[in-house]
Amino acid sequence: MSDPLRIAIAGLGTVGAETVRLIGEQGALIAARCGRPIQIAAVSARDRNKARPVDLTGLTWFDDPAAMAASPGIDAVVELIGGSDGIAKATVEAAIGAGRHVVTANKALLAHHGAALALGAEAAGVALAYEAAVAGGIPIVKALREGLAANRVTRVYGVLNGTCNYILTTMRETGRDFDGVLAEAQELGYAEADPGFDIDGIDTAHKLAILTALAFGCVIDFAGVHIEGIRAVSALDIANAEELGYRIKLLGIASRGEGGVEQRVHPCMVAKDTPIAAVEGAFNGVVAEGDFVGTIMAEGAGAGAGPTASAVVADLMDIARGAVLPAFGVPAGSLERLATLPIERHRGSHYIRLMVLDQPGVIADIAAALRDEAISVEAMFQHGRAPDEMVPVVITTHDTEDAAMTRALARIGALEAVVEPPMRIRIEAL
Amino acid sequence: MSDPLRIAIAGLGTVGAETVRLIGEQGALIAARCGRPIQIAAVSARDRNKARPVDLTGLTWFDDPAAMAASPGIDAVVELIGGSDGIAKATVEAAIGAGRHVVTANKALLAHHGAALALGAEAAGVALAYEAAVAGGIPIVKALREGLAANRVTRVYGVLNGTCNYILTTMRETGRDFDGVLAEAQELGYAEADPGFDIDGIDTAHKLAILTALAFGCVIDFAGVHIEGIRAVSALDIANAEELGYRIKLLGIASRGEGGVEQRVHPCMVAKDTPIAAVEGAFNGVVAEGDFVGTIMAEGAGAGAGPTASAVVADLMDIARGAVLPAFGVPAGSLERLATLPIERHRGSHYIRLMVLDQPGVIADIAAALRDEAISVEAMFQHGRAPDEMVPVVITTHDTEDAAMTRALARIGALEAVVEPPMRIRIEAL
Repeated sequence: MSDPLRIAIAGLGTVGAETVRLIGEQGALIAARCGRPIQIAAVSARDRNKARPVDLTGLTWFDDPAAMAASPGIDAVVELIGGSDGIAKATVEAAIGAGRHVVTANKALLAHHGAALALGAEAAGVALAYEAAVAGGIPIVKALREGLAANRVTRVYGVLNGTCNYILTTMRETGRDFDGVLAEAQELGYAEADPGFDIDGIDTAHKLAILTALAFGCVIDFAGVHIEGIRAVSALDIANAEELGYRIKLLGIASRGEGGVEQRVHPCMVAKDTPIAAVEGAFNGVVAEGDFVGTIMAEGAGAGAGPTASAVVADLMDIARGAVLPAFGVPAGSLERLATLPIERHRGSHYIRLMVLDQPGVIADIAAALRDEAISVEAMFQHGRAPDEMVPVVITTHDTEDAAMTRALARIGALEAVVEPPMRIRIEAL
Repeated sequence: MSDPLRIAIAGLGTVGAETVRLIGEQGALIAARCGRPIQIAAVSARDRNKARPVDLTGLTWFDDPAAMAASPGIDAVVELIGGSDGIAKATVEAAIGAGRHVVTANKALLAHHGAALALGAEAAGVALAYEAAVAGGIPIVKALREGLAANRVTRVYGVLNGTCNYILTTMRETGRDFDGVLAEAQELGYAEADPGFDIDGIDTAHKLAILTALAFGCVIDFAGVHIEGIRAVSALDIANAEELGYRIKLLGIASRGEGGVEQRVHPCMVAKDTPIAAVEGAFNGVVAEGDFVGTIMAEGAGAGAGPTASAVVADLMDIARGAVLPAFGVPAGSLERLATLPIERHRGSHYIRLMVLDQPGVIADIAAALRDEAISVEAMFQHGRAPDEMVPVVITTHDTEDAAMTRALARIGALEAVVEPPMRIRIEAL
């Protein structure tokens, strides 16, 4: 048995504590599988005196995680602090600077600084591993970097945020509206007190930017992601989706086209019988399409202490086994800079839901706005009649350019009889 | 750029030819991702003069693949011949004997000789890689060996044979019976002229035995797999399953219990809303349950030239990158010998379908047979009435020992009014 891999853990929240517990409980199994044990040498967190569910006796404590990362006798640093900058970034940079491998669950850090960190890690000859940053316990980073390595990936997409998927699933199952379900999710601990990061699509966009870089071998480009969240999705939209044979999912979708890469995060209607539609509740699911392998999907718990710790330790075990690969699959210096294909140029079909006053001529005005943008209507329905009261009108369209729809909706939204901002959900052919 | 990885390919059927094509087409991408190219140095197949869709110019030809495997200047041998013994086994043994890495898609070989081959490869310090042997292009071997390496896996199961799944899916979609759908599948090339290997469950059992060894770190034990195929599944059973809220799938299921390992392959009823029920057509899907990660599922094309070549080349790329791991996750010498838990001791609920003459007293006789084995009936139904003619009777039961059901069915099958052998499909709580 070789020397242990000596690690330092920065951040002892639920994932950090679970990582300590996992390494303790599975010590024999880890050593058997790696040919060497993994040994926690040091830990750091904001508050040394906080009650924690794991025993830290015998571990060297650091108040400053960056100092810990650079201290002697450490082989690898696990960063579980979170946040795109500040102390998390300083810790990872200190580790790389001192020639230590890095394992992180920090998607925000990678989305914003992944390119520079990958270059630094490579120059130092150390790993920058982040399986836990995307889709929790699902080994999708490994699948893209190694399992599908023989393929040119053309598209990758997924349900990447368990909070949003839980809310959308619960809305569908109960018929309730967004606000009530969000409040309940917050009580149950499925959503944060400040939920914007999740429900406005930022978290999904961080993860998508990472998947994009990995799948296409390009420089990570978070700024190139078009982002919309799920706040505007109503119980009515969910019910309409059901009637039309769709499910509504917040997807992150990256595809490589002729002129560059398209990255977008927004609510989507997906056909009920697609595998991604079956990813329900707090689960995550990721689909990758490769030129030889075809379509592959992986599904599992996308968050939570156990799954995330499982991914963190898998990365550590790779390092213990001596497998140090380029962070994004190819040497950081040869990652391509691909142009961003803007959402305005995206082509696809749409679901539009309007709240209109039931008056003669409204439908004609709406139809004219669509016609003038050369948007072809697939179906239009208005359930029930209620003269002079507000009724929903639902329209589905054939493929159109996104910008044309945006212009048409601006005109439709300005009609006097249209009393709420138009709701638009893109229909994805998956 | 380092020296190329020089490989020899034994077997040039559809997968072999596609592997040659993939390496040719993706040469630049492979070199970028591995830091070195993969170069085909030699090939071997049964018939040198057969027309093939790829150009073999410049490659050294061998009539004898075992001689090729041991010839100078080869780093890795790809075995795509197939079959558990004979020339495939000789080729792999020759490669290991000469100190060459082995990549194989041969599940039969591994199921029967995996333990000895893993020991040999380890002694020689070479890889024995087989991603392509289980579930085609889905990187499930890598997921179990590396992605979920921090977990104690408690159960692994899946739809592992695309032919069976295609037949069962088509039967459900069309309402047609087994024989007709099989004949059509044969015409379409989805089933072999001699389909027994697939539809009798042998192929699924080979793959399950491999997954079991990998998931639980035990010596591969193909003889310990209980195997039943899908020939007896009728259109009526499929329709009944639908009515009861289930789908019928041929699953391979391995679980680790107190006293050992249970491995079984048979048609199962699974609840319609489970992820595995959504794996349809020729697709494969594998579910793994780990103590930290929870439940993970991977789905994709389980066969076909492209997906299989994708998996073969992924293994070669691992080798090119220098990652040589123990074949079954831990050193072959420390794989455990776990006891086989026989199917007779399995506990679960059942679907039973009988064809009986509609006569007074029949149901009482059937009920008595179940009662005498302490089997608790959950539901029993007989649609329609047809005095003195044959009618189907369907029974679902609560959990019972498998052996008790076998005894009860022997008694029921012997009743004069029961005119066909009883059909039994186990209901799986997944």
